[in-house]
Amino acid sequence: MKPIINDILASRYASQKMCEIWSPTGRIILERELWIAVMKAQKELGIDIPQDAIDAYEKVKNNVDLESINNREKELRHDVKSRIEEFCDLAGFEHIHKGMTSRDLTDNVEQLQILHSLKLIQEKYYSVLWSLKGKVKENSKLMLVARTHNVPAQPTTVGKRLAMFSEEMLLAFNQLDDVINSYPLRGIKGAVGTQLDQLSLLNGDKNAMKKLEDSIIKHLGFGKSLNNVGQVYPRSLDFNIVSNLYYLSSGISSLAKTIRLMAGQELCTEGFKKGQVGSSAMPHKMNTRSSERINGFHSIINGYLNMLMGISGDQWNEGDVSCSVVRRVALPGSFYAIDGQVETILTVLNEMGFYESVINKELEKYMPFVGSTAILMEAVKAGAGREEAHEAIKEHAVKVIEEMRFGDRTVNDLSKRLGEDSRIPISEEKIIDLLKEEENFIALANEQTESFVSEIENLSEKYPNRSYTPDDII
Amino acid sequence: MKPIINDILASRYASQKMCEIWSPTGRIILERELWIAVMKAQKELGIDIPQDAIDAYEKVKNNVDLESINNREKELRHDVKSRIEEFCDLAGFEHIHKGMTSRDLTDNVEQLQILHSLKLIQEKYYSVLWSLKGKVKENSKLMLVARTHNVPAQPTTVGKRLAMFSEEMLLAFNQLDDVINSYPLRGIKGAVGTQLDQLSLLNGDKNAMKKLEDSIIKHLGFGKSLNNVGQVYPRSLDFNIVSNLYYLSSGISSLAKTIRLMAGQELCTEGFKKGQVGSSAMPHKMNTRSSERINGFHSIINGYLNMLMGISGDQWNEGDVSCSVVRRVALPGSFYAIDGQVETILTVLNEMGFYESVINKELEKYMPFVGSTAILMEAVKAGAGREEAHEAIKEHAVKVIEEMRFGDRTVNDLSKRLGEDSRIPISEEKIIDLLKEEENFIALANEQTESFVSEIENLSEKYPNRSYTPDDII
Amino acid sequence: MKPIINDILASRYASQKMCEIWSPTGRIILERELWIAVMKAQKELGIDIPQDAIDAYEKVKNNVDLESINNREKELRHDVKSRIEEFCDLAGFEHIHKGMTSRDLTDNVEQLQILHSLKLIQEKYYSVLWSLKGKVKENSKLMLVARTHNVPAQPTTVGKRLAMFSEEMLLAFNQLDDVINSYPLRGIKGAVGTQLDQLSLLNGDKNAMKKLEDSIIKHLGFGKSLNNVGQVYPRSLDFNIVSNLYYLSSGISSLAKTIRLMAGQELCTEGFKKGQVGSSAMPHKMNTRSSERINGFHSIINGYLNMLMGISGDQWNEGDVSCSVVRRVALPGSFYAIDGQVETILTVLNEMGFYESVINKELEKYMPFVGSTAILMEAVKAGAGREEAHEAIKEHAVKVIEEMRFGDRTVNDLSKRLGEDSRIPISEEKIIDLLKEEENFIALANEQTESFVSEIENLSEKYPNRSYTPDDII
Amino acid sequence: MKPIINDILASRYASQKMCEIWSPTGRIILERELWIAVMKAQKELGIDIPQDAIDAYEKVKNNVDLESINNREKELRHDVKSRIEEFCDLAGFEHIHKGMTSRDLTDNVEQLQILHSLKLIQEKYYSVLWSLKGKVKENSKLMLVARTHNVPAQPTTVGKRLAMFSEEMLLAFNQLDDVINSYPLRGIKGAVGTQLDQLSLLNGDKNAMKKLEDSIIKHLGFGKSLNNVGQVYPRSLDFNIVSNLYYLSSGISSLAKTIRLMAGQELCTEGFKKGQVGSSAMPHKMNTRSSERINGFHSIINGYLNMLMGISGDQWNEGDVSCSVVRRVALPGSFYAIDGQVETILTVLNEMGFYESVINKELEKYMPFVGSTAILMEAVKAGAGREEAHEAIKEHAVKVIEEMRFGDRTVNDLSKRLGEDSRIPISEEKIIDLLKEEENFIALANEQTESFVSEIENLSEKYPNRSYTPDDII
Repeated sequence: MKPIINDILASRYASQKMCEIWSPTGRIILERELWIAVMKAQKELGIDIPQDAIDAYEKVKNNVDLESINNREKELRHDVKSRIEEFCDLAGFEHIHKGMTSRDLTDNVEQLQILHSLKLIQEKYYSVLWSLKGKVKENSKLMLVARTHNVPAQPTTVGKRLAMFSEEMLLAFNQLDDVINSYPLRGIKGAVGTQLDQLSLLNGDKNAMKKLEDSIIKHLGFGKSLNNVGQVYPRSLDFNIVSNLYYLSSGISSLAKTIRLMAGQELCTEGFKKGQVGSSAMPHKMNTRSSERINGFHSIINGYLNMLMGISGDQWNEGDVSCSVVRRVALPGSFYAIDGQVETILTVLNEMGFYESVINKELEKYMPFVGSTAILMEAVKAGAGREEAHEAIKEHAVKVIEEMRFGDRTVNDLSKRLGEDSRIPISEEKIIDLLKEEENFIALANEQTESFVSEIENLSEKYPNRSYTPDDII
Repeated sequence: MKPIINDILASRYASQKMCEIWSPTGRIILERELWIAVMKAQKELGIDIPQDAIDAYEKVKNNVDLESINNREKELRHDVKSRIEEFCDLAGFEHIHKGMTSRDLTDNVEQLQILHSLKLIQEKYYSVLWSLKGKVKENSKLMLVARTHNVPAQPTTVGKRLAMFSEEMLLAFNQLDDVINSYPLRGIKGAVGTQLDQLSLLNGDKNAMKKLEDSIIKHLGFGKSLNNVGQVYPRSLDFNIVSNLYYLSSGISSLAKTIRLMAGQELCTEGFKKGQVGSSAMPHKMNTRSSERINGFHSIINGYLNMLMGISGDQWNEGDVSCSVVRRVALPGSFYAIDGQVETILTVLNEMGFYESVINKELEKYMPFVGSTAILMEAVKAGAGREEAHEAIKEHAVKVIEEMRFGDRTVNDLSKRLGEDSRIPISEEKIIDLLKEEENFIALANEQTESFVSEIENLSEKYPNRSYTPDDII
Repeated sequence: MKPIINDILASRYASQKMCEIWSPTGRIILERELWIAVMKAQKELGIDIPQDAIDAYEKVKNNVDLESINNREKELRHDVKSRIEEFCDLAGFEHIHKGMTSRDLTDNVEQLQILHSLKLIQEKYYSVLWSLKGKVKENSKLMLVARTHNVPAQPTTVGKRLAMFSEEMLLAFNQLDDVINSYPLRGIKGAVGTQLDQLSLLNGDKNAMKKLEDSIIKHLGFGKSLNNVGQVYPRSLDFNIVSNLYYLSSGISSLAKTIRLMAGQELCTEGFKKGQVGSSAMPHKMNTRSSERINGFHSIINGYLNMLMGISGDQWNEGDVSCSVVRRVALPGSFYAIDGQVETILTVLNEMGFYESVINKELEKYMPFVGSTAILMEAVKAGAGREEAHEAIKEHAVKVIEEMRFGDRTVNDLSKRLGEDSRIPISEEKIIDLLKEEENFIALANEQTESFVSEIENLSEKYPNRSYTPDDII
Repeated sequence: MKPIINDILASRYASQKMCEIWSPTGRIILERELWIAVMKAQKELGIDIPQDAIDAYEKVKNNVDLESINNREKELRHDVKSRIEEFCDLAGFEHIHKGMTSRDLTDNVEQLQILHSLKLIQEKYYSVLWSLKGKVKENSKLMLVARTHNVPAQPTTVGKRLAMFSEEMLLAFNQLDDVINSYPLRGIKGAVGTQLDQLSLLNGDKNAMKKLEDSIIKHLGFGKSLNNVGQVYPRSLDFNIVSNLYYLSSGISSLAKTIRLMAGQELCTEGFKKGQVGSSAMPHKMNTRSSERINGFHSIINGYLNMLMGISGDQWNEGDVSCSVVRRVALPGSFYAIDGQVETILTVLNEMGFYESVINKELEKYMPFVGSTAILMEAVKAGAGREEAHEAIKEHAVKVIEEMRFGDRTVNDLSKRLGEDSRIPISEEKIIDLLKEEENFIALANEQTESFVSEIENLSEKYPNRSYTPDDII
């Protein structure tokens, strides 16, 4: 007997709600609901289906026996047929799936799973933004050495750094709303998309056909359906969905990388509580395991997106099933991964913290370098020649940095040296004071973060569950 | 000396307009225009820049000497500096790039190139849809055997088949408009995104800073700029753009694959004119070389998208240049490829044709099979038992198909056999008549294609250049 | 409670053997065996471990209770620790994992799973080649119209066409052997790769350390271990393995695409037996569902390869766990997919067949076109002017093909027309005879296929299970 | 007129030699040499080709006028024909390309370009390994804090860290040799691979055909040719080549990432010379621009590999040109990128350096933490209870690290505290001495690096140009 192997993403990382959307049982119930909705519409349009039958199906629809269905499938070598027979046997009637082809069932149900998953992610993603907004506010005054090329550049604030990644997320989040709202259903379109099968059942009544289609669109909660499809809806729709998940994942991933970098400088940690212990052998060692995992999820979504890229733009005539196994893997996989990523970043945001003291020490160390432009300007104002002052600053800066790198110097004394150099007609004290006028050095950082905070707060009514707490992660 | 190697996509496949957007000369002029716009705004905001200087820069801005710039770059090992010096030497002033960092120049100009390219593609893509709309109308009555799994399934029309791929394109096209409209500029944000450098120049006047930013947004034709960025705008923006190009490419690619399949059945051709000759050695051989190339472009965009996936979600702190060489390759490359693809499909649409006679012969051959459901229904109406009739049809169908596959039969005589079988109480004539009622078999195909035609026509005013003729392709 | 979701690839497509390699239970047993092997080596090298303890561990090693382990993991938030504790509690001792870090366990066991999987695939892949060899031989005389650009070009044989894809597979298969033979183990290298932890346990005895490492290499069945690693082995090793799986998948995928194309022309089928029925509604319709699925697996491996591309070349210092979730998904996933693909192609090869009659009719139809070069040469030999004869052939060929495409012609009468044209001084009979000398037209096809057949047969001793029968597929 | 746009990778990053291999002129000369080789072989096998003709072709073969060829191509819409006509017009004869099809020319010449490129990369890659070997030796005694999860773990040496990435490179390098040696040529196989065209020319003499093939294999410097191909060689060969380039790129990329990380800690720099100045505005700021670029090249090769993944496993029948534009872009692109990457890492290795003083200070800071296991063992030896001692170390370690993170502590006084704690029966002095016994803490690092050094030195005779100096990079 083959060993049973659980889906690793679903079982370890995705949330219960996401798993429910994609579980075999959940899916089968969605299918049965679609069949029932079609039957009801057909009955209303004059097809002879007894109310008893509909009632019987309704009664047993949550009665899902996966083993029985699997046994049928092994027998029939056809997945949809096995599920039809199971449902009919349970109900004691044979009225479902009339005038329908397999894809009328499966494509629509899969789109429904996608739509539900998108909405779930949308809601949780807002929680991430909401949590980030809090952190941005909290840290909007905390100055930090910004780094470009991973080395100190100019000052910024911790809040601004967070808002930078948050705004990247917000771009993807805003686009997601458009994607959800314009997502079209395939609909009941028959074997090659002309609606022949269902239309025949309705005796060629095109108006009835339109009514049936409309009622199914409504039942599934979509805004519209496609007009011109073949056996399947175009697979580039799947690509587009998961591409948007990758977009959503990008800002989170960049934030996680920067957390990993900051932890390497001891500027922040994923385990902030005092007394918290790293590993048993090395209690000082707080690893950013969750941020690393977040980056891992990004690579996973990349892979699933590539699977779907392979089936986009590859439709032969009215379609076939070369996309089938790909979609079975990549669609739920993508949603488990983004869900796991969102759960993880929420956990990180709950547990992380910034070491102000280390941040301040770093700032102090580099401030004379990163503030040297201001010193130059002040020196010029005080009468220095620009070229000469610039040369003086360069000379001393290089000396200081070399003593720090090649020698034993740990304290940056550039201010002192410049104060003592006659080419710079301002005193050490003046320079030190200058470098303390922090507000000047962070320029518009506060205005920038405030605009982000407002944007997020303005959206808050739409997302009442914004303070979502993720499950414990392992 | 290193041999000069032209960019293969630009030189062989992309259009002149697209090449102009991405040419080194074109780019340098855009940069110079940005510098001038900044200078003008700075002057207006009180920075001391003589009007003479601005005039001097304006005068020489189209004077681009790539070799001179390259020589400077080899000397300075810095691309932006070399272009600053060149422009200043030409003008005889040193007033550009004040308070700006390299990325204030390059990121904004690159976004401008992207925006122009998107708009160019948008316009041409509409031409493709317009051309398809014409072909859909033209062929809306031409019945064809639809294929699923690449084998005959049910009837459809050539128009419907085209509309199927066209509607896939339309989905991506509609999304493109949203993407263009919401595309945000990075703006003049300085070395780490806090706008420190420009703000210092403006003596800390935050309102002036805002005015300057606004005037640059306007100058570049964007709707808004990002608030919170680092040294660079988030690279997931690039991913999102090219992801949309891949989406645009997918419907075209599926259409091209189906053209290649249809040509293999001699149902259509890329070289439709009578008397047209294939290769010299094999005059009968009309190859779908252009459709094959279209599929090739799809793989190319896939690759460029993957390059950009590698730099999305990978920002370290406020940014660095690990994305630089990637974007130099992938951004223009993606646009050349989608442009080449659009040019090629336009050529295909202009030159292709359908062989009605072959299409009809194929339909005739398979009609009794694909119409057997209708025969069954008619037989039941005429009094046959459903099970018995179904069995009869299956028996004969299998016999006929086996004679055709294993033997010498070329004509499908299923109608005759059924007419002669007592289990089917309708005559051969009746069956043949039944199969001739074509309208029944294409079900809603006409209504579907009409809805596509309307949608396209409704957009036509927005795109006056819809009858764009592509350049000759090689 | 979260619903349980099975891994879709493992449960639906992969074979029992492959699932056993990657099942949680299988993996835990491998880990326990490694721990026991390390203990034995440690004992031999003087570490104080009672034989009783080793015996106790041996006794319970197959006693795997996944639920208990999972519960421990939820408690401890550490996967390896939970498995250590479980095993120790079962045995009633605490002697495993001495001087080992998590990766000493997990990296080595995962490499072992990879090695076992590679060997399993190697063996089954040979079965595919063996089966193909049989089909090549069987069909080496069956002439077929070769197609380039999907349209008729020159004659070939069915055997040659199969050998073409088979030789592609053989290239990847041959490389696989090198990859397996040179695959290096990480070994017991400690937390940062310097072997500090184990060496300390061995009191700094470097020779003892070397002996321990060697015994583990031997225990796991590898040829060598890496010298210089960090916490982990380089993840480009994983990339390289799965890249080779994609290479293996490529020839199979091309063959499957061509089967799908041939089925569209009714030249072959996946369901060859007489009396076999397609779908119930359309008994004539034999779909190449399995070949389509094979192409699907190719896209899936592509995606997994991309996941691993994302973690190759991305090692930070001595390593971290950003690769962890990626490898948990992509490594088993890749092997399930290639395994499923191999199982499926074996099924296809068992069940497929070629319709000789249709193949012959197609050849007849196109022979005058594809043989026209031979006619030209013969005409010239018989005294015709080359240019004039070429012109004559072109004229008639174009006319015939146009009558076939635009008109009602179904029979190719080019031979007749040329026979009657005075510019071609040979008779219709002569031309027809010429076109019948089949051997001439297939040129070296037979010699080529024979060389493939020999190559495969020469390898047969190494693979005694070459006639492996796949499980039934669903 | 379309602006001329240079290939960015070729013009900015690739070396002259690599550009020569892929330049249009270089390629045309290779084609002409192949034509001449075929003519000579044909003449020898009895085909009537005057020696005068061969001489005339030889004489003009280096006379390449790209513009003239382009003009012909625009006229003929066929690339190969235009090059045939050009060469014939130059020579004044019409004897080339007899019995050949386009792919007999282009596939073979492209494989030759690939082979030459592989050999060029192989040689330069050895230079990288050679240079790394030097650095490994030079820094084999320099202790460094190894990091896992980007935070301090245990000590290692700088040499070992370098050897870790170098050994990853060596794995890919060793595999490259196999790939080169087993790389098979397509050969002269005709339109559908059966060698019909050439065999006809040789009057059906199969031995002559074999001789001609063999002489071409030899002329091109390959070891063998494929037996069974179609119009083209299998495109998975291209995938396999570029996959190996990605493998080669991975170790370099990981090294570059770690350099970027180390520069962020000021442990190393790309600009090591004293007095070297960063940017003009920030002289202290030494950016690892080249290492960042190296990572960029890695993403680029990823993208090209994906392009080729799209055309692997996608052969339809005997082939077509859907792969053509893809290969035109991805093949040279991949080689330019790996070449640029190798040039860049060589430059980095030449210019980089390690700041020993900073490295030592970091080690000092973390040594008490990372050496705490040794302290524990010593304490136990001195009579302490294991559990109690472990608890003591944990308590103090957490206190120290928290004072460093939350407070003002900069010096790690763990040794002092433990010396004063009665649960640890060893003195501060003893602990400090213990931590100074560096050799113990790096365990087998020296033996490991020595084995790498030997492996590289043993290969040195094969690569006489191992001290290759890269061109200046921009």
